[in-house]
Amino acid sequence: MNVDGKSWQTIWWEGNGRVGVIDQRHLPQQLVVEVLTTVEEVFRAIREMHVRGAPLIGAAAACGVALAARSATDRDVDTMVARAAARLKEARPTAINLAWAVERVCAIVSSQEAAADKRKAAYRESRAIIDEEIERCRLIGEHGLKIIEDVAQRKSGPVNILTHCNAGWLACVDHGTATAPVYRAHDMGIDVHVWVDETRPRNQGARLTAWELGKHGVPHTVITDNAGGHLMQTGRVDLVLVGSDRTTRAGDVVNKIGTYLKALAAYDNGVPFYVAIPSSSIDMSVRRGVDVPIEERDPDEVHNVDGFSDGVGRAVRITPETSAAANAGFDVTPARLVSALITEHGICEASERAIEKLFPGPAV
Amino acid sequence: MNVDGKSWQTIWWEGNGRVGVIDQRHLPQQLVVEVLTTVEEVFRAIREMHVRGAPLIGAAAACGVALAARSATDRDVDTMVARAAARLKEARPTAINLAWAVERVCAIVSSQEAAADKRKAAYRESRAIIDEEIERCRLIGEHGLKIIEDVAQRKSGPVNILTHCNAGWLACVDHGTATAPVYRAHDMGIDVHVWVDETRPRNQGARLTAWELGKHGVPHTVITDNAGGHLMQTGRVDLVLVGSDRTTRAGDVVNKIGTYLKALAAYDNGVPFYVAIPSSSIDMSVRRGVDVPIEERDPDEVHNVDGFSDGVGRAVRITPETSAAANAGFDVTPARLVSALITEHGICEASERAIEKLFPGPAV
Repeated sequence: MNVDGKSWQTIWWEGNGRVGVIDQRHLPQQLVVEVLTTVEEVFRAIREMHVRGAPLIGAAAACGVALAARSATDRDVDTMVARAAARLKEARPTAINLAWAVERVCAIVSSQEAAADKRKAAYRESRAIIDEEIERCRLIGEHGLKIIEDVAQRKSGPVNILTHCNAGWLACVDHGTATAPVYRAHDMGIDVHVWVDETRPRNQGARLTAWELGKHGVPHTVITDNAGGHLMQTGRVDLVLVGSDRTTRAGDVVNKIGTYLKALAAYDNGVPFYVAIPSSSIDMSVRRGVDVPIEERDPDEVHNVDGFSDGVGRAVRITPETSAAANAGFDVTPARLVSALITEHGICEASERAIEKLFPGPAV
Repeated sequence: MNVDGKSWQTIWWEGNGRVGVIDQRHLPQQLVVEVLTTVEEVFRAIREMHVRGAPLIGAAAACGVALAARSATDRDVDTMVARAAARLKEARPTAINLAWAVERVCAIVSSQEAAADKRKAAYRESRAIIDEEIERCRLIGEHGLKIIEDVAQRKSGPVNILTHCNAGWLACVDHGTATAPVYRAHDMGIDVHVWVDETRPRNQGARLTAWELGKHGVPHTVITDNAGGHLMQTGRVDLVLVGSDRTTRAGDVVNKIGTYLKALAAYDNGVPFYVAIPSSSIDMSVRRGVDVPIEERDPDEVHNVDGFSDGVGRAVRITPETSAAANAGFDVTPARLVSALITEHGICEASERAIEKLFPGPAV
């Protein structure tokens, strides 16, 4: 999407063993590009959230495997690729895209005989994953557009969309998942306005979603994570639109912590609650959301808030020095609270039957 | 309650036209005492949240009226008291205690003939309000204790209580509302543990509730406002216990924004949801929570987070400079989601019939 009139994506091959990414820790203050050249650099970029968002960490990990293949000697390509795959899958546990993308590159490497072919195949496959992720998000935008158009036709004034965390292009390669229909509608001239949950502890909403919507010119208002229920009670939300780090085959949605609370409020107020996901975020091997591992992150993310003052990035502590903190990264929104899933194949009910119908055959 | 072994309350008369308060903006870093001597100082202390919490701002406003009576000439006590009352009631709109306490002092002033008697009566009434608020909270602790004891008897390990915002002694004069049963149980040796919602935008949970629980030795863990639903889904919350800025005669609970989301999650997971309120927070003149005015506060409270670094208080900005923010202060938890009210008269259902039965006759 656009940043100051220039088109960007979050990850790209600069060729010759160099993967370019936006280091998102510096947003919204600075647009910093980082170049990754080793598996360990990719691992750290994922673990420490220079890159984040389920589709993007999948794409980044795929590139990491390709870097491993590239730097291996002819004799040990398979070993190095397997080692990189194991390492990268450990970087973060919840998003299914990570394992999915890594395994996809590993499979193509295994299918080749010669070391040179393995290297080429890994590189090509990681490029394909990047390109396909863009296309999946574009199609999510096309399908989701209809939902926004329907609301726009029924009301005057802007279509008010509430979103949680960042399921924008910064979480993907381009377009975003939850934001794809928003950008599409905005670009078509539909009057949209987004309520952006700040999304503590890391404030991906306040820092990233607000930044990317603003840069693309989409009207938006940042709110605390506490505010969405009140806005729904007072009729100021037409629909909720979020992404997912992993959606089970039964339609349970694992997403950034706090998503479940917004789903409950939407249900209680008759506000439709949509989840936008590429098929790469669906885990056909798990039925119940409660069986998905939930990442426990550093309590310091709760104790401290990152921001900036006088133009300088700075963290402040908000809790007493002697207080403990807990920091689960995700929660589970049961399928019963989800109005529909918006995927690259179309819109479907959040149920096993509907998901299997939309995605026949083995999981992508 | 105790701070480093010394007993404190949030507000007290230092005699001779001087009202002492804890200036809560400096917590948890520093315990700063402020002395208020004029109506305007009291107004500012309430508006700018040096003091906050429904019972406390009622007590502070009562002292403000008494200060107005004290500084008036013999001829204009009534005029100055009326002017102070109007001004102080404007300081914040949502908590009913503010108007309740101001009107109570005004009524006693009107009932006296001589200026000297008016002054004395105002001072005595504000003292009485302070003392009664302490006693109401103490009784809430007694009644609420039974609920915690019941849970403790049914399970091994700590009783896990989730609370939102600060309904502690810092919000009252002493004991607190939601915290009164917690302190009582803890002091009796019951194993309690409190999940403290940080409560953006002003982080009264992370800054104040965590501080006062810690100073009194109560085990607690700070969590983001997003986390409570997940904790309830995974069986780690035995009960929710919050305060209220205004509860209607039908039992709708107006409280810090985000309370409604926790009530929905409690209901969805079969976790009891209790609201601890002194009768001074019940508004018998309003039936529906949606008819209570909800304070819109400065969007800068959302854009910025107050904390400290290197021991110095500091605010950091978390949103892009060009993004808008919205900041409603309260939301409405419908009576249907409330398991019971805990008051100084006992525990009752959140319904018009039960409230009228517990508080017969005119509202206090």
